[in-house]
Amino acid sequence: MKKYTIGIDFGTLSGRAVLLNANNGRVLAASVCEYPHAVMDRALPDGTPLAPQFALQHPADYLEVLKQTVPTVLSASGVSPDEIAGIGIDFTSCTLLPIREDGTPLCFEEKYQSEPHAYVKLWKHHASQPEADRITALAKERGEAWINAYGGRLSSEWALPKIYETLCHAPAVYEDAARFCEAGDWLSLLLTGKETHAAAFAGFKFNWDADRGYPSDEFFRAIDPRLGGIVGTKLSAKVDLVDGTAGTLSERGAKLTGLRVGTPVALPMLDAEAAMPALGITETGVLMAIFGTSGVQIVHDKEKKDIAGVCGYVSDGVIPGLCTYEAGQSGLGDCFDWFVKNCVPEKYAVEARESGVNLHKFLREKAKKLRVGESGLLVLDWLNGNRSVLQDADLSGLILGLHIGTRPEEIYRALIEGTAFGMRRILDAFLAGGIAINEIRAAGGIAKKDDMMMQIYADVCRREIRVMDTDQAGALGSAIYAAVAGGIYPSVVEAAERLAVRDAKVYTPNPESSAAYDALYEEYVRLYDYFGRGENDVMKRLRRL
Amino acid sequence: MKKYTIGIDFGTLSGRAVLLNANNGRVLAASVCEYPHAVMDRALPDGTPLAPQFALQHPADYLEVLKQTVPTVLSASGVSPDEIAGIGIDFTSCTLLPIREDGTPLCFEEKYQSEPHAYVKLWKHHASQPEADRITALAKERGEAWINAYGGRLSSEWALPKIYETLCHAPAVYEDAARFCEAGDWLSLLLTGKETHAAAFAGFKFNWDADRGYPSDEFFRAIDPRLGGIVGTKLSAKVDLVDGTAGTLSERGAKLTGLRVGTPVALPMLDAEAAMPALGITETGVLMAIFGTSGVQIVHDKEKKDIAGVCGYVSDGVIPGLCTYEAGQSGLGDCFDWFVKNCVPEKYAVEARESGVNLHKFLREKAKKLRVGESGLLVLDWLNGNRSVLQDADLSGLILGLHIGTRPEEIYRALIEGTAFGMRRILDAFLAGGIAINEIRAAGGIAKKDDMMMQIYADVCRREIRVMDTDQAGALGSAIYAAVAGGIYPSVVEAAERLAVRDAKVYTPNPESSAAYDALYEEYVRLYDYFGRGENDVMKRLRRL
Repeated sequence: MKKYTIGIDFGTLSGRAVLLNANNGRVLAASVCEYPHAVMDRALPDGTPLAPQFALQHPADYLEVLKQTVPTVLSASGVSPDEIAGIGIDFTSCTLLPIREDGTPLCFEEKYQSEPHAYVKLWKHHASQPEADRITALAKERGEAWINAYGGRLSSEWALPKIYETLCHAPAVYEDAARFCEAGDWLSLLLTGKETHAAAFAGFKFNWDADRGYPSDEFFRAIDPRLGGIVGTKLSAKVDLVDGTAGTLSERGAKLTGLRVGTPVALPMLDAEAAMPALGITETGVLMAIFGTSGVQIVHDKEKKDIAGVCGYVSDGVIPGLCTYEAGQSGLGDCFDWFVKNCVPEKYAVEARESGVNLHKFLREKAKKLRVGESGLLVLDWLNGNRSVLQDADLSGLILGLHIGTRPEEIYRALIEGTAFGMRRILDAFLAGGIAINEIRAAGGIAKKDDMMMQIYADVCRREIRVMDTDQAGALGSAIYAAVAGGIYPSVVEAAERLAVRDAKVYTPNPESSAAYDALYEEYVRLYDYFGRGENDVMKRLRRL
Repeated sequence: MKKYTIGIDFGTLSGRAVLLNANNGRVLAASVCEYPHAVMDRALPDGTPLAPQFALQHPADYLEVLKQTVPTVLSASGVSPDEIAGIGIDFTSCTLLPIREDGTPLCFEEKYQSEPHAYVKLWKHHASQPEADRITALAKERGEAWINAYGGRLSSEWALPKIYETLCHAPAVYEDAARFCEAGDWLSLLLTGKETHAAAFAGFKFNWDADRGYPSDEFFRAIDPRLGGIVGTKLSAKVDLVDGTAGTLSERGAKLTGLRVGTPVALPMLDAEAAMPALGITETGVLMAIFGTSGVQIVHDKEKKDIAGVCGYVSDGVIPGLCTYEAGQSGLGDCFDWFVKNCVPEKYAVEARESGVNLHKFLREKAKKLRVGESGLLVLDWLNGNRSVLQDADLSGLILGLHIGTRPEEIYRALIEGTAFGMRRILDAFLAGGIAINEIRAAGGIAKKDDMMMQIYADVCRREIRVMDTDQAGALGSAIYAAVAGGIYPSVVEAAERLAVRDAKVYTPNPESSAAYDALYEEYVRLYDYFGRGENDVMKRLRRL
């Protein structure tokens, strides 16, 4: 029986493939390919300038990833295409493009070469904020119940605002689009020749729910009469639950990858969710936390529940039979980067250089020596707005407790603590909604690098945090899904049991620090509610000025 | 008739004398003498270490100032001692020392050489905070009405806590002290042989009031039975209203200064208040604002009124027939210094150096280009606590509105704006108490140097600000008081009319900016009240942790 699979993780700037021995969990080879066009936020390839907040991609780049990385992992591992049992892909989301009936992206056509809306709108394309606001306002006005499941508002990062934006600003593109589909689904179509719409994409980003489907046609018509009928046309692909494959490699898919026609292809998956089986999270009670530029928290539960402040959910979208909930922190690593770039004095920069460490490490060494609460500082970590549980992009960061003796490492530590309190607040929302969290498993750049931060997170959250031993959880997870598609395992639960990575390090809460943080967290929550829930909307008013 | 006078301003680190032609207002010579012992905050001269928060001075240093500066201004100007019509001094306050009946400071005696409490406690000696808190609590407990006139609490900078601290920690010094007197009054005693207790010192720093005198003996006994009878003994010097001289130079005073025996000596004055006649502020309706390390706001009124948040007041202490009110901002220039030292990145430091400007100027150039409200930031300027109108040293600074695009110059400007809002809040308290403020006259290091800041102050306060043309307003004011003591003018009002300096620059509020600042100020006041008036005491709780 074939025992190798390939997983490919399509990130924001590059794609990464791994080749897995699906019998023993060993990764035999990995390969990364940067997108030639990266993120287009200033201009299109032909020089057409882009408006602020645009973040586009070129779909040809994804094909480039297939062409380069798959042959590379094959030759590096010495595995023949004949031995590949299956292939899986995961993708950033909502990363959306308009295509023709035959799957051709509109931006491939000459007539649309200079039309921004014909390209891929990357997840972080935020120019559709006005459309997101309009949809939110209308849903509230009409008392649409479904919006409450998404914290009562749509983000510009989601599908409907991005589609509506295209209708408003490029009606011809809207007209010519046979489908608006996730880049992950589009790639799946190219590989298999069969249309998919993975439930994970539909649930988390298209406001779709297995019980009620999409928002009603009446609602779409209320947004704009031209959106009438969209579900039966431009969103007509049947939503695929996670139990099953997308199909098998077509001639074209085989050509794109160098693999054999008929190789099973797993249903495409969101990148964060794909990491879950790689970290062995296929049951309830274990939270996956990604500590990167931003923060993501995902957890499964047996039932669908109303959880305040969750960004999205899907049933049967990630693990068959479970409902998966996602929350997030819009600012994490980028808050610390902002601080290091903008707020650290020359003296520290010089000292760090002389000691041969980077400024982050230099500050951490100093911050580590501080006792909990010693600085008297408290931070609201909303430098990128608040994704969960307030879901309000217009909130801003706050530092309280400054005095003329305050040192940079104290503010740095307070920023870290602020993000830890933000995560605890998310945990509390899950717990309040009846979702169990007994353990946290962590991945992401910060998790592997930053001992001090992980200890603070464990102390603040009063939970053991296991940092898992992988830098490529997404690609590995896709390879695990591929092992199910390829028939090596009967289910993703069994595949993950055998193939998930182990923990690299475990952080156990220090009871004394946890107790001290409880007092600070209480203050944090009070400020959180005061500034975040309408008692004092000063942050929004200042933003409007 | 003699037409020259000498004024000497005793500051925190040095004394400065000027020789004035009191007929035309021209300063003919000036001389500065640094105190040899500066501020003793680590150890006494014999090496005895000092506890934290101590700030002592050596009284011999003040004599050194007399010996050096007076002969210097005489010889530099070519004026003979015979032509000196009068001499005046002003002093930091409350700067307090224990003396023998004959005026000898206890620290001059060998037995007290190693006793910190035998030295001069400088105004910023803060080790007496526990005693200040105890007196405040007791006054509240007993419902002492007088404490309300000082914002409901005593500061460690004032006389009673400093004296009580001596009783607690060095009872022998307390016992041996015939008087506790302000350094200004002590110097006056040395110069004239006659004891004074200038009303300005008594009113602003000793909780004395012309109508009710000092707090009651019963209250002193309640603090500590050993304080019983203090007003008739260690505080027995009669309080001198401003109308009149302190006396004339004694043999000893003449020897200390090189001037003639019998030369009239003006009543000593607080340093900030001495500046008022120099800036021509001898009537109601004009606020004096000093923009330095900290901020001071002083204004006269015809009547004694209850003004919330004023630090102190005195009737007939500065200008005969007027009541003088003082408020202050505990953090001003030192907030900006903190920021520049701790929060400005290397890139800026390098650029500033390459442009040949200091970092303050570099940041101002960038900050100047920002529009009002553009940054979305708002600051509570309490990095040194709040002196007026909340009178709460335990409050701390706050920055709100941060996002990952926030630049250093935006925070710098928001800090400046925060202090401007703090000043407007003080103006509002004066206005609410029925005190007119039609114009602001400014002095201090920042006033002369920082155009951008002065314009922001004018815009925020919606008042014309006249920056006055002097760097030595205190010494000049003392020379003006000396001109009254010497009989050149019948009153300080008439003297000031002739001798006050002119304005160097006038800042007129820009109506558009003022309107934009009104909206920000409204937000500021809301946060001010929320964090400053007990609705959320998070700042105090964090400080206690």
